[in-house]
Amino acid sequence: MKKFSVIGIGAGDPDHLTLQAVKAIGAADAFLILEKGEEKADLTGLRRAMLDAHARPGHRLVEGRDPDRDRTPAEYAPTVDGWRSARAEIFERFIADLADGETGAFLVWGDPSLYDSTLAILDEVLERGRVAFEHEVVPGISSVSALLARHRTNLNRVGRPVQITTGRRLAEGWPQDVDDVVVMLDARHAFTAHLDQDLFIYWGAYVGTPDEILVSGRLADVAGRIEELRTEARARKGWIMDTYLLRRG
Amino acid sequence: MKKFSVIGIGAGDPDHLTLQAVKAIGAADAFLILEKGEEKADLTGLRRAMLDAHARPGHRLVEGRDPDRDRTPAEYAPTVDGWRSARAEIFERFIADLADGETGAFLVWGDPSLYDSTLAILDEVLERGRVAFEHEVVPGISSVSALLARHRTNLNRVGRPVQITTGRRLAEGWPQDVDDVVVMLDARHAFTAHLDQDLFIYWGAYVGTPDEILVSGRLADVAGRIEELRTEARARKGWIMDTYLLRRG
Ligand SMILES: C[S@@+](CC[C@H](N)C(=O)[O-])C[C@H]1O[C@@H](n2cnc3c(N)ncnc32)[C@H](O)[C@@H]1O
Ligand SMILES: C[S@@+](CC[C@H](N)C(=O)[O-])C[C@H]1O[C@@H](n2cnc3c(N)ncnc32)[C@H](O)[C@@H]1O
Repeated sequence: MKKFSVIGIGAGDPDHLTLQAVKAIGAADAFLILEKGEEKADLTGLRRAMLDAHARPGHRLVEGRDPDRDRTPAEYAPTVDGWRSARAEIFERFIADLADGETGAFLVWGDPSLYDSTLAILDEVLERGRVAFEHEVVPGISSVSALLARHRTNLNRVGRPVQITTGRRLAEGWPQDVDDVVVMLDARHAFTAHLDQDLFIYWGAYVGTPDEILVSGRLADVAGRIEELRTEARARKGWIMDTYLLRRG
Repeated sequence: MKKFSVIGIGAGDPDHLTLQAVKAIGAADAFLILEKGEEKADLTGLRRAMLDAHARPGHRLVEGRDPDRDRTPAEYAPTVDGWRSARAEIFERFIADLADGETGAFLVWGDPSLYDSTLAILDEVLERGRVAFEHEVVPGISSVSALLARHRTNLNRVGRPVQITTGRRLAEGWPQDVDDVVVMLDARHAFTAHLDQDLFIYWGAYVGTPDEILVSGRLADVAGRIEELRTEARARKGWIMDTYLLRRG
């Protein structure tokens, strides 16, 4: 039987790797690497450094060019579906090319369970039924855990719920029934739609990396500064990944 | 200056430890260990095994007896507040006893940001102002990430929000505006309040440990089996920790 490991690598700090991930990297024969265009070269660089440090001698790298995705945010389901099928073909080919008994692996940013398509893509590959394989998932430090650790604060308050959502959703309105909201995939500064509320923000960009930027404070006081920092960093580096917790009351 | 590390150790598998956690454990001079009564002896055992494997020779263990907490669930804020202050005193004493320049550490189950009181306790110690120290937080694999990895499924659906809440809250009603809900701290089988809905459940107890139990399926089909397994395991081991994702539609 062929094996496939989906390995969460954490959100930017090479030391986010778990011992389980280090072992899974060391056990793999071949790694699928998807280049994401120039703007994400830093991210591919981190993955390569992890392989240099932890993969076993003689491992193979198989490079695929990530299918072009519309420049619209990752949140539009229809766009995502087409892109997902194109990606499924790349995974299918990679697995087909493994020898029997070999283990292939794919490194996933952060935690594979959180706003990442890899598990759904593998389900699609399994459904097509053209290649047979077993797969396992190695959990990783998510950008949410990384952000909150750097701010030394909790995700939730005692006994209270928390919602994790996208910038697009937050721009449409504050979610019902929760006072603590984590926002990911925000390309539009959606927090600016809620300046009239009594909110505290814990914001971080490139968390865990040498470019890390952290800001916290009353939203009304720090929103302008975050917008500036975000725009400036995005222009300088060509891409940005940021996440924030909004806490009401 | 004294230092204090809050170290997330993952949800039960010793290989959930990150490289950052291994380094933080190796850098500490003294560890505060809180015994939680017999039922949690397994959990204390895991922490001790991690120290045996990763702490530096000559490190000190300082044992505190966890202040008795009402047997009511951890979610009642008033109960928690009194308990938290009692705990703050234990942390304060531990830090006071560190020599200048030394690093103390505390190992937190899962991820320190998720339904854990350690960071709030340290804030209370800092507010009292009787001991001065710097602290850092090392993120950990949460039981949520661990659960979803074992079920090889996502926390959220594409572009959709997810809520993390408690059994107590779920028993009061299904949260507004979300179709994906993770439930923690559920002592009352709160999922049984929602058997009439079209829900899928991904359930896990003792995830990542040798006692792990996983069940997934349509809630109406598997709820009875989960109740049985849960009751049986709790009786056999004396305690249970379980988490689940409910997915609607
Ligand atoms: C496609 S999702 C992947 C999330 C990833 N699976 C995780 O567990 O963090 C990308 C989003 O994650 C967040 N993100 C990822 N890495 C980050 C980092 N180092 N700092 C801040 N946010 C980050 C941002 O919100 C970004 O828009
Ligand atoms: C006080 S909270 C601590 C959560 C922890 N900080 C984390 O990140 O997972 C305890 C709750 O976490 C969940 N939990 C912790 N470890 C677990 C495990 N190994 N398997 C299933 N659930 C777990 C259960 O819902 C339990 O009631």
